[in-house]
Amino acid sequence: MNISTRISSINAGGSDGWDLYRRARALKEAGAPIVELTIGEHDIRTAAPILQSMHEVALAGRTGYSAIQGIRPLRQSVADRIATATGVPTTADNILITPGGQFALFSAHAAACDPGDRALYIDPYYATYPGTIRSVGAIPARVMASAQSTFQPSAADIEAVVKAGPPPRSLLINSPNNPTGVVYSRETFEGIARVCTDNDIWLISDEVYDTQVWDSAHLSPRALPGMAERTLVVGSLSKSHAMTGSRVGWVCGPAEVIAAMTDLATNTTYGLPEYIQAAAVFALAQGPDFEAEIAAPFRRRRDIVIDLLARQNVVKAVPMQGAMYVMLDIRATGLSGDAFAEALLDATQIAVMPGESFGTAAAGHIRVAMTVEDATFAEALAQVLAFAGKLAA
Amino acid sequence: MNISTRISSINAGGSDGWDLYRRARALKEAGAPIVELTIGEHDIRTAAPILQSMHEVALAGRTGYSAIQGIRPLRQSVADRIATATGVPTTADNILITPGGQFALFSAHAAACDPGDRALYIDPYYATYPGTIRSVGAIPARVMASAQSTFQPSAADIEAVVKAGPPPRSLLINSPNNPTGVVYSRETFEGIARVCTDNDIWLISDEVYDTQVWDSAHLSPRALPGMAERTLVVGSLSKSHAMTGSRVGWVCGPAEVIAAMTDLATNTTYGLPEYIQAAAVFALAQGPDFEAEIAAPFRRRRDIVIDLLARQNVVKAVPMQGAMYVMLDIRATGLSGDAFAEALLDATQIAVMPGESFGTAAAGHIRVAMTVEDATFAEALAQVLAFAGKLAA
Repeated sequence: MNISTRISSINAGGSDGWDLYRRARALKEAGAPIVELTIGEHDIRTAAPILQSMHEVALAGRTGYSAIQGIRPLRQSVADRIATATGVPTTADNILITPGGQFALFSAHAAACDPGDRALYIDPYYATYPGTIRSVGAIPARVMASAQSTFQPSAADIEAVVKAGPPPRSLLINSPNNPTGVVYSRETFEGIARVCTDNDIWLISDEVYDTQVWDSAHLSPRALPGMAERTLVVGSLSKSHAMTGSRVGWVCGPAEVIAAMTDLATNTTYGLPEYIQAAAVFALAQGPDFEAEIAAPFRRRRDIVIDLLARQNVVKAVPMQGAMYVMLDIRATGLSGDAFAEALLDATQIAVMPGESFGTAAAGHIRVAMTVEDATFAEALAQVLAFAGKLAA
Repeated sequence: MNISTRISSINAGGSDGWDLYRRARALKEAGAPIVELTIGEHDIRTAAPILQSMHEVALAGRTGYSAIQGIRPLRQSVADRIATATGVPTTADNILITPGGQFALFSAHAAACDPGDRALYIDPYYATYPGTIRSVGAIPARVMASAQSTFQPSAADIEAVVKAGPPPRSLLINSPNNPTGVVYSRETFEGIARVCTDNDIWLISDEVYDTQVWDSAHLSPRALPGMAERTLVVGSLSKSHAMTGSRVGWVCGPAEVIAAMTDLATNTTYGLPEYIQAAAVFALAQGPDFEAEIAAPFRRRRDIVIDLLARQNVVKAVPMQGAMYVMLDIRATGLSGDAFAEALLDATQIAVMPGESFGTAAAGHIRVAMTVEDATFAEALAQVLAFAGKLAA
């Protein structure tokens, strides 16, 4: 029996980029002492009081179908948090609760794009971006953000891709950025906003790392003039509250788009577990101090990276401005990111992601997730740098 | 800003059929003593031991990202349950865990249909069926199952719709049936299987009421000769285990289709909370006795309906064979289902669903959900029948 072209071509017939991750995971499951610096998973678990609040709500009987758009207290909490952070008026009607930021990405693209429409994204990119665009039947169109421009996409480069085909419907961006750890500058955001406005394009802004900004404050492009009406912000509690497995995310956008996305939710997820939503309200009520506490380990480990990089001159840093990753330029070793990561795993049992897993713009780089405790992380990173030094010598 | 045609046309511009439900719910929230016999929600809550097992797993630290296809123990439990019930060899590779049966319906249609393909469904239908088909960009094509044939769809009627347009890719059926409470006969299933085989059509079989069959054993069409390769079974713990709000469902189908649907899951839900999946394993381990206990109230209340119907001759029954609903023929009152349900709510504060909410084949009927405790249910149904009697007099 044939299956649909759409679903069978989600991965475009190629690798999904996670080959090294799977090899490392298999080695670990076979008993090897692998240090995994691969995926964006905290080394702590969800805080017990959050889980306790979830359990109490479930035991109290809130185990039935829930409001499909999300319970009002959660939508209100998310709206208030966004309004406070950005200054943009935001109400519960601007919020759809989704099972994770990934479903928010899917919903936003489904709202922006019809089958066959072009949808832009930036390379380097988080692994699911092209597949998410293909999942709604749209056509991914890539904009390169080069290493020499510190992975900041330029308005001219975006405009060139816009003009290179039929008018696109959306542009997907991510700042703080996975995989590069770069935070977009105000100038970058203003260029993006101009291109979106000039070409009547939806901006889909993935801001799931909004609490992990090291040198500045998080900037949401929805706050730029004229952008609230054309921006769909993707958010999540996964990274900010160490709740990856609980699958709580949202889209923030114009109320009429949120209503249409709720129709899609009726026919897909049919709402989220109410006890999880109640736990999310509890988590958000812990406020900015709790969020800073969850982000603190990555801030500390980033300092470890800066310190260790200063002691050698083979591996070059990309600006380390946000998110739980650092991108390292290992081109001086003469190896590709793929070859370096494979050789590193064999030689040291340390697993990092090749830059090539996230597109072509980050070739010759490796992404290091700062997701093991500090001493182990420092020891592993020193080994990575020593390994690169030997290769370059 | 324009949104996509697909997402803005999910409801085809019309009512979603839930107007009466919302009116009743608003009255209830305003303090009126409404008896709700509307939606398929148990009058019990999820059993405490299931919630306790969930909490223990969460506290033990299983709060991170989970396997996107579903954890193996859950896929194995579902596969074993299906193999035992149907005799069809079924392994964990045949199972994708989804956030509820609704997402399983969406995934199955995404796998079967490309945008613009025709997808068949049976009228009367569960409310989300046409919207689910439109959500994947496919075109809903309706097959009527008439009241005079006790809502059993005939092979000839399906074949006629197949031939009335471009070759369809799928046929969606549901037995035990919501909204009619009818269970398809072996003859009906054999006719359906023949049409699917003759025309190379995927059969999407929604079996979420598989534990609520009153006079016979549940029959899954996947067990018919040659059908395992072309059937996608949709299942769920919502109705069988009173876990509606926990959003645990699955698709059972050929391994290569499950793999492709897992690619879609990577780009949509990114897996389910692992602590919920562990609770689902615990729930399934309670076995058939527990499932019978959850189904027992509906079996008892169906006997109440039979008893009360025998004492009057205005309202006629549709065969009451399964699921948590009975469909009642109120055409002798001279009213449509819509008009009857509205008048009933005004006169008695009892809310039932108009047959018209589920398509045109059930016009002149009402669907009564047997979802309040026995004494209240008996009293309410007696009032419904008395109200019909007065109208007919």
